[in-house]
Amino acid sequence: MTTLSSDILAALQSQAVELPSWAFGNSGTRFKVFATRGTPRDPFEKVADAAQVHRFTGLAPTVALHIPWDRVDDYGALRRHAEDLGVRLGTINSNTFQDDDYKFGALTHEDDTIRRKAIDHHLACIDVMDATGSRDLKIWLAEGSNYPGQNDMRARQDRLHDSLATIYARLGADQRLVLEYKLFEPSFYHTDVPDWGTAYVQTAALGDRAMVCLDTGHHAPGTNIEFIVMQLLRLGKLGSFDFNSRFYADDDLIVGAADPFQLFRILSEVIRGGGLNSPGVAFMLDQCHNLEAKIPGQIRSVLNVQEMTARALLIDREALAAAQRANDVLAANAIVMDAFYTDVRPALAQWRESRGLAADPMAAYAASGYQGQIEADRVGGVQAGWGA
Amino acid sequence: MTTLSSDILAALQSQAVELPSWAFGNSGTRFKVFATRGTPRDPFEKVADAAQVHRFTGLAPTVALHIPWDRVDDYGALRRHAEDLGVRLGTINSNTFQDDDYKFGALTHEDDTIRRKAIDHHLACIDVMDATGSRDLKIWLAEGSNYPGQNDMRARQDRLHDSLATIYARLGADQRLVLEYKLFEPSFYHTDVPDWGTAYVQTAALGDRAMVCLDTGHHAPGTNIEFIVMQLLRLGKLGSFDFNSRFYADDDLIVGAADPFQLFRILSEVIRGGGLNSPGVAFMLDQCHNLEAKIPGQIRSVLNVQEMTARALLIDREALAAAQRANDVLAANAIVMDAFYTDVRPALAQWRESRGLAADPMAAYAASGYQGQIEADRVGGVQAGWGA
Amino acid sequence: MTTLSSDILAALQSQAVELPSWAFGNSGTRFKVFATRGTPRDPFEKVADAAQVHRFTGLAPTVALHIPWDRVDDYGALRRHAEDLGVRLGTINSNTFQDDDYKFGALTHEDDTIRRKAIDHHLACIDVMDATGSRDLKIWLAEGSNYPGQNDMRARQDRLHDSLATIYARLGADQRLVLEYKLFEPSFYHTDVPDWGTAYVQTAALGDRAMVCLDTGHHAPGTNIEFIVMQLLRLGKLGSFDFNSRFYADDDLIVGAADPFQLFRILSEVIRGGGLNSPGVAFMLDQCHNLEAKIPGQIRSVLNVQEMTARALLIDREALAAAQRANDVLAANAIVMDAFYTDVRPALAQWRESRGLAADPMAAYAASGYQGQIEADRVGGVQAGWGA
Amino acid sequence: MTTLSSDILAALQSQAVELPSWAFGNSGTRFKVFATRGTPRDPFEKVADAAQVHRFTGLAPTVALHIPWDRVDDYGALRRHAEDLGVRLGTINSNTFQDDDYKFGALTHEDDTIRRKAIDHHLACIDVMDATGSRDLKIWLAEGSNYPGQNDMRARQDRLHDSLATIYARLGADQRLVLEYKLFEPSFYHTDVPDWGTAYVQTAALGDRAMVCLDTGHHAPGTNIEFIVMQLLRLGKLGSFDFNSRFYADDDLIVGAADPFQLFRILSEVIRGGGLNSPGVAFMLDQCHNLEAKIPGQIRSVLNVQEMTARALLIDREALAAAQRANDVLAANAIVMDAFYTDVRPALAQWRESRGLAADPMAAYAASGYQGQIEADRVGGVQAGWGA
Repeated sequence: MTTLSSDILAALQSQAVELPSWAFGNSGTRFKVFATRGTPRDPFEKVADAAQVHRFTGLAPTVALHIPWDRVDDYGALRRHAEDLGVRLGTINSNTFQDDDYKFGALTHEDDTIRRKAIDHHLACIDVMDATGSRDLKIWLAEGSNYPGQNDMRARQDRLHDSLATIYARLGADQRLVLEYKLFEPSFYHTDVPDWGTAYVQTAALGDRAMVCLDTGHHAPGTNIEFIVMQLLRLGKLGSFDFNSRFYADDDLIVGAADPFQLFRILSEVIRGGGLNSPGVAFMLDQCHNLEAKIPGQIRSVLNVQEMTARALLIDREALAAAQRANDVLAANAIVMDAFYTDVRPALAQWRESRGLAADPMAAYAASGYQGQIEADRVGGVQAGWGA
Repeated sequence: MTTLSSDILAALQSQAVELPSWAFGNSGTRFKVFATRGTPRDPFEKVADAAQVHRFTGLAPTVALHIPWDRVDDYGALRRHAEDLGVRLGTINSNTFQDDDYKFGALTHEDDTIRRKAIDHHLACIDVMDATGSRDLKIWLAEGSNYPGQNDMRARQDRLHDSLATIYARLGADQRLVLEYKLFEPSFYHTDVPDWGTAYVQTAALGDRAMVCLDTGHHAPGTNIEFIVMQLLRLGKLGSFDFNSRFYADDDLIVGAADPFQLFRILSEVIRGGGLNSPGVAFMLDQCHNLEAKIPGQIRSVLNVQEMTARALLIDREALAAAQRANDVLAANAIVMDAFYTDVRPALAQWRESRGLAADPMAAYAASGYQGQIEADRVGGVQAGWGA
Repeated sequence: MTTLSSDILAALQSQAVELPSWAFGNSGTRFKVFATRGTPRDPFEKVADAAQVHRFTGLAPTVALHIPWDRVDDYGALRRHAEDLGVRLGTINSNTFQDDDYKFGALTHEDDTIRRKAIDHHLACIDVMDATGSRDLKIWLAEGSNYPGQNDMRARQDRLHDSLATIYARLGADQRLVLEYKLFEPSFYHTDVPDWGTAYVQTAALGDRAMVCLDTGHHAPGTNIEFIVMQLLRLGKLGSFDFNSRFYADDDLIVGAADPFQLFRILSEVIRGGGLNSPGVAFMLDQCHNLEAKIPGQIRSVLNVQEMTARALLIDREALAAAQRANDVLAANAIVMDAFYTDVRPALAQWRESRGLAADPMAAYAASGYQGQIEADRVGGVQAGWGA
Repeated sequence: MTTLSSDILAALQSQAVELPSWAFGNSGTRFKVFATRGTPRDPFEKVADAAQVHRFTGLAPTVALHIPWDRVDDYGALRRHAEDLGVRLGTINSNTFQDDDYKFGALTHEDDTIRRKAIDHHLACIDVMDATGSRDLKIWLAEGSNYPGQNDMRARQDRLHDSLATIYARLGADQRLVLEYKLFEPSFYHTDVPDWGTAYVQTAALGDRAMVCLDTGHHAPGTNIEFIVMQLLRLGKLGSFDFNSRFYADDDLIVGAADPFQLFRILSEVIRGGGLNSPGVAFMLDQCHNLEAKIPGQIRSVLNVQEMTARALLIDREALAAAQRANDVLAANAIVMDAFYTDVRPALAQWRESRGLAADPMAAYAASGYQGQIEADRVGGVQAGWGA
């Protein structure tokens, strides 16, 4: 069995992956959202499910919220609920894509009234952050256009800057604004923050506490994502990851499921650039479990991140540097592939047990009876989803 | 002003584009469906809106229905309603993607009970066809899988054949089965009919009345769609088009909006292969007007098809053949581009007037007062959408 | 250490990967071909290098030739040379893309004289096959066009059929024609055999000894290649693989280098469909070692195929079928991923030693002194490349 | 016939498109470079051919050179030769991809000796600029890697900055450095300047006279290129265009040939952002005429740019702004499409004649006898291509 060095275990010990509350609710495609038994009806139940993931993995101490999906009357109560269950509330995600007013834009809208409403929503999110103790305000903008000519892209870019500056000015000294980019969807012709370059220039224009969020599913086919990771770390602007995987578009599948080697390369660049266990870089999931069970789907996801991080940590950096200096292409690649192909799972299982966790979190969760319990308990009410 | 020859006008005179009833209902993305005033509440109102498109363009004499979205108690009444408004009912589209039973497949499902239910749905669609006088049963299958290993793709392919064969056997002598392929969505890892090759081999195994439907938005980036048009016409298997346009994925935008030159090339191959005004090849739209007005969106769409057909008909085929024989790349391309760049709109407007139609159908519809009328009339009830 | 069952070892024992002679010559991009010391000057030296790959891996008993790059006066002598070195001559690849006459097509050319010349080249290739004892004539066609209108795609398709039929008629009873498809390059607008569907209908029109070759680098982004593997095996038309890997276009990188999980999925479908060790399905490499050392590049490649085959054989098919029947998405995927993540390398090394092979073929080759020998010996002359 | 306003004609009057000297030499793919009769043997003949394009179009007053392909003993003589023919020498393009030393990098190379050699090459290019009177040094870097792990991308990025800073420091006060980005090719895994974001941050770190070059063929599928045009203009960093078109990868086809509507949208954003006839934004071609005649290929290309600029200038900006303000999607799109579909060619032909130019430059060139002359004259010698 491959053993993991104490350095590697120490690095893994500090690793934390933030869970999205919405992964525990129903999701789907434009064609259909399938419901599942036991799905949470409110943010308290979502947080309870998230806590199960942490309970069995020790890897997921925080839960990201999405406003208004996770709006509650008393955020202090939600915070205490989380802490009672052994987790904390994390990033606050804003939402400016489901109000009829935002049909043609929000922070970029031509109409100042609507733009002000969208800004105010973000200020309200910062109020929530103050109550939950969250550090990061994550902004993903659905806005854009479907047809050439529909909008003046340039003017929208300028209005976007104005809106973001207003929001940024309201942040507390320990709070950050993290701007996410996305190539397309739900807008089909243009999006207002389509690429890392735009997210970079927009956040650089704000200040040091404005950062970029890299969602691994938001790029054009063929994009070398780990290059972007490298570049954003080099520029000091990588604020967070939204991990998931995809075969075609923004499929939001389990991280590592579609292209495990890509996840390995991304994590390898994170380590190379000092982003692992750096307080400045938040590891988050952003996934949809349309068909598979949600809680185990999240357990699998955080384990995938952990396992792949362990593999990336196994890269013999000294030998790699020597092979690179010698331009020995095959030797350098072999060093990288050797780490990737090493089976770290038995060693991780052993280490997990040594820390009082289940060797096999998936099996332990299945055996815990939690799923049966929530299916029995959560009868009636409206299941949580993207619409509520 | 460019004039159009009598041959071209005769070809255009026969052109007909079938409208999808669902284009008049609400649609959107997984993030949001925006409602609009005046949206139909039932199939009768959808047909009434479709009839407006035909009224102003003379181009859209038939309306495709989608079952169960367009289920009514009395299809004879719906048929008479259509005919009273000057249009006919066309293709029947089945739907096996919105019932909870179909979460993991329909015509390919491992469980024979569910597979039989899906087959029965198609037999019921044929009953509707008998009542509506429809010729074509169009089958688009949402089924597939999201994760490698989730399903046995090979066994599903065999079950698909069995299911289709059962459905095919029930068709009347003048009816056809048209199978649509799609690369991805809503399934993200594999779809059971992902490409024209699969649609071809599945329909070839059924018989002569099984054909392929080509939706212009269902291909991988970089696919030469007009090549597929050429090949399917060559093989005698092109049954119908679902016209729309896309920048990234299956955006379902107005046909010709994203890449007008691609539409031109497609229509040029249709003409080359004898598919224009051939009874065997149905021209249909399959679009979503998520942001723009729906009835004018459809008017614009059929006009785009007409205008681009006129341009493709302008290609000087003799001169082109001579340039091709001489391998004069620039001359051949120039002949094609000359047709594309010719502005046929004034001649079409004039010809439209000569036939008693409005020169500018978009303006005529706007001036007709119809939109105001339906916004006033259609109050209350549930607006039609993909869910109903 | 993971052990491999006797069934798995027996399957691996029979595995054979054919090497392309041209992988040992120089290659590059349109920008530059870098030369390397020790590169073969003629087919005899290429075969000698290929024999080294087999010597250290036991996996590569045959060498594919490319005509005219590998034209020799006496194919019997080349055959004996190969056999003396412990390998055999394999597939014959035709070449109709480097003669000035073929600028605008070969088997599809409008000019019958040139088309006949291209057909005759293939008949000459069959003569070579008779002399070398080769079974397969592999045809990859570079032909197509760069601009819309440049050619009549439909007429070319018909001429392609005529040309292929003439060639097919000349095949011996034990010989096969294998037609390769490719999306683009060197033609940019259209290629005459762009997809598996076209290769299928063209070979189906010829007869049972006409098959399809699947090159893993010849698809549009997002294509599910293992689906095509499944479908071609289902149709009995998968004749051979050209293995390589790619990030963007037809990069011709070492197989398994860009997306190891994709290679795993492909091999898993090969096994599922009965294609492993089937005489009907030839495993070949088609790669370019533009930057890395060539002989070790080929050793790495065949090892990658072997290792990934071992992983795919580890899939617990019974458990997988049960999970699939239960629609337990996570369980089914876990079974597949467990096989992928299992480190088979130590067991393979041990098994290799048990058969008298080096545990580490890469290290054994490096230690053999062969590279130094050829660099010393092969001085003067013209290094082999794509141009000669 | 559509008439063009005096404002539009004035804008077109100032338009200038720079030609690449290498478009007149032979080019091809990695598979084959086809030679053509009359191809220039040296830079003087290339400039002579370029002058023909200007002679017939009045649109192409400058010629870009590529060092070392266009190295001559006496740049003053080449400059006078150009001026005698009515054109000037323009941008100097460096080349660090064809020397064996640059196999593993140039400005990013790990070995300081090689990196210094690459820097010195650029300093020598600036010497050429001083002699030719050129303003711009355009740098496209072929460097990158083919396999994950082959190189340390981060360290290369830092070395790139150092190298560029050294080169930038040597520029004269009126000279600029223009950095081009490219997604892939000839490197397949990573390129050191893959996207506009990287080109932006690298040039922003240098100073005001460092700009970005946008080659329209250097993006991933689905990229909204006109968005990048907008953003770079907004940031004041768009230095030049390399115009061409592509269906799949970097096909280097005639500008406007693959997607004329995309060219229209790009030019529309250029106009919107003040980039038309701005001294800061150079319009250049970067194309390969692999199959078609070269001089007419360039004539067609500059005409395409002119015609599409005229169409983009026809957009009724006031009406568009009003439709955008009203969020009238169809009206806004219609305004844009109306401009695109307007046939400006007759008006341009008339205007051309009014300026003493041929109404039909393609026909005039064909009738001029120039092609016959060079085919007769240019016998013997080595035809120019990428290798010399």
